[in-house]
Amino acid sequence: MTAPSLASVRALDAADPLAAFKAQFEMPESTIYLDGNSLGPMTKSVPEEMARAVREEWGQGLISSWNAAGWWELPLTLGRKLGPILGAADGQVVVSDSTSVNIYKTLQAGLAMRPGRPVIVTEGGGFPTDLYITEGAMQGRPDLSRRLLGENGADLDAVLDDDVAVVLLSHVDYRTGELFDMAGITARVQAAGAIMIWDLCHSAGIVPVALDACNVDLAIGCTYKYLNGGPGSQSWIYAAERHHGNIRQPLSGWWGHAAPFAFEQSYRPEPGIKAFLCGSQAILSMRALSASLDVMDGVDLNQVRTKSMQLTDLFITLVEQKCAEYGFGLFSPRDAARRGSQVALTHEDGYAIVQALIARGVVGDFRMPNILRFGFAPLYISHEDVWNAVAILKDIMDGGAWRAPEFAVRAAVT
Amino acid sequence: MTAPSLASVRALDAADPLAAFKAQFEMPESTIYLDGNSLGPMTKSVPEEMARAVREEWGQGLISSWNAAGWWELPLTLGRKLGPILGAADGQVVVSDSTSVNIYKTLQAGLAMRPGRPVIVTEGGGFPTDLYITEGAMQGRPDLSRRLLGENGADLDAVLDDDVAVVLLSHVDYRTGELFDMAGITARVQAAGAIMIWDLCHSAGIVPVALDACNVDLAIGCTYKYLNGGPGSQSWIYAAERHHGNIRQPLSGWWGHAAPFAFEQSYRPEPGIKAFLCGSQAILSMRALSASLDVMDGVDLNQVRTKSMQLTDLFITLVEQKCAEYGFGLFSPRDAARRGSQVALTHEDGYAIVQALIARGVVGDFRMPNILRFGFAPLYISHEDVWNAVAILKDIMDGGAWRAPEFAVRAAVT
Repeated sequence: MTAPSLASVRALDAADPLAAFKAQFEMPESTIYLDGNSLGPMTKSVPEEMARAVREEWGQGLISSWNAAGWWELPLTLGRKLGPILGAADGQVVVSDSTSVNIYKTLQAGLAMRPGRPVIVTEGGGFPTDLYITEGAMQGRPDLSRRLLGENGADLDAVLDDDVAVVLLSHVDYRTGELFDMAGITARVQAAGAIMIWDLCHSAGIVPVALDACNVDLAIGCTYKYLNGGPGSQSWIYAAERHHGNIRQPLSGWWGHAAPFAFEQSYRPEPGIKAFLCGSQAILSMRALSASLDVMDGVDLNQVRTKSMQLTDLFITLVEQKCAEYGFGLFSPRDAARRGSQVALTHEDGYAIVQALIARGVVGDFRMPNILRFGFAPLYISHEDVWNAVAILKDIMDGGAWRAPEFAVRAAVT
Repeated sequence: MTAPSLASVRALDAADPLAAFKAQFEMPESTIYLDGNSLGPMTKSVPEEMARAVREEWGQGLISSWNAAGWWELPLTLGRKLGPILGAADGQVVVSDSTSVNIYKTLQAGLAMRPGRPVIVTEGGGFPTDLYITEGAMQGRPDLSRRLLGENGADLDAVLDDDVAVVLLSHVDYRTGELFDMAGITARVQAAGAIMIWDLCHSAGIVPVALDACNVDLAIGCTYKYLNGGPGSQSWIYAAERHHGNIRQPLSGWWGHAAPFAFEQSYRPEPGIKAFLCGSQAILSMRALSASLDVMDGVDLNQVRTKSMQLTDLFITLVEQKCAEYGFGLFSPRDAARRGSQVALTHEDGYAIVQALIARGVVGDFRMPNILRFGFAPLYISHEDVWNAVAILKDIMDGGAWRAPEFAVRAAVT
């Protein structure tokens, strides 16, 4: 890449087919928000949708809104909106519960699909909750055990054998941003007879995903990162249609029952994807998600991916050129094709630098022990934003602003 | 009771210490809402609180609101607001996930507290999801089994023995409205060495509850009925302090970790009640719940209970007097002391009658096979509302309006 200039960066924005989306997002003044990989910003349609939901649906409709306003069907309705984003044909996705809860459901469903196979495989360096939930799945089950990728250098081939029931992996690593080969890994796992579960928290909505085409068995992901669903908005869950009718998971609440209002005494799972539902969902939060997904309706994820690679490449290039003397390491893959939409840098004073950036309006986040993490969401981040973010980073490093005492303390929650 | 008159009913309202609360609830015109036992109405404070939450906390605060707006602490903050309503000293209640999910957590935690005891006890006639989740808790666990109260006439003494780990019971039956003796049953269960789990979906917020004083082990309940938290608002979970440090439940997500942002590789439960948390919560729905709980702050539940008994007594008396010839049965206990805040009638044409009532603005609900269910929430239902509701019921029965064809079809969801 030739050295980018402000003019060349502005030319990229002028030619950007996604440029019009930026106006649909609410953004505080003087903020360059590079933390959409943690919490996406609000689309401007949300306040009105929320006002309508509370005043009309709840306030006036009351109990009748479970049917009349479609509350009861929201898990499927939202799942249908997610289908194109996930490369999933209709009827295979529901939105319900949290990511952690859904990981548990898929692990248990996968174990039930592979009786006699007692081993769960996941990544030692995976997102902590994925690890913690695999531990939870083994509670009270001395028959089960776990193998961790990366532990003692174990790779996938080393851990796969006839004992493995399920493999849970992240499509994009939450720290490095590395993007993994969904089709290839799925095939290897299935060749060993195991069920493949993908965690798409850091790829859904930002990387073109083809769950059906990759023959994935089960997948989950959050909706509050690149899908902009709002704080803690519910998670989605995918099950390939070939598994429908064979989903048995222990969070067998009435929403997953084949006849939830017959009030039968015994659980009888719905034959389709709704077998992954459990109990009543927090509807108001789902309304915000609904509004944000409408903004993404029809977005070309190939355009998103192209711009995402441009943005992350530009960021890396600019940091390398303008901040070369300040000791940043690149923790993400240098090759854009092997990267999601985030760039992780390392620096021993990473925490203070991130705080100094936030004070100047450049919002990224810090992850232990020394990782500066920046997410680039093409729907609301421009090339010029990247240019300005690196200019501010350079200014902070040039002037030593990050050494100010107020940036030195590590908060418990970042 | 002498025959009530409109004048005597109005006199009760004039003397009602809770009368002022009615103005704080949104209610559609010409509606007598007797379905707060299914979905509570919206307090008038909700729209503004929701607008603030989306515009300020999410829209402007973005990721910083996890700390600055207290999102991260909301499960505990809301639990603290519920403490007085549940008779629970501080630090023993969190709000998180759905009722069904929380039943699962408490069942598993109870099983883990009683190793070597393989039996779960619950009611054969309990709310279906309670039954379904007890089935789920046994998935993949051939070592576990279940005993149902009521099955082959079994009572509590018949099922309790040294094999029983946990007993899950409803404080108020969802159909009959029968109120059970929390202190007495808890003591019997604990005398047999088992863990007592109470489901308070139909009593929290409407009956004075004393979880601490009754020495309850674990309890759960929803927040969208008499706590008016909004459609599908999150459920609460209580664990007596004596069990803290000993809570092991398999939905071991990062929110329940002792150091959630240290990103440790192994799960280490928070020593207190937060060990019952799992993953990210739908914050916007929790904001609505927060607003509704503020309205209940300081409410005297003894006053609520007194009025609740008056309202249900009045309803029963009026139905008996004015609709005597129409074949209604009383499915709830006649003695107010043994009743929660709902009255269940039976009628072979119950479904059509409920629909005809709804068409006239009297909202109750129908439960299979022949139950007309009416909930009476003293914060927004007056004695005159009850008078008018029965007058409308009598009019419908007198004129046969319920025989209209549009009321004859049973909806799948009611």
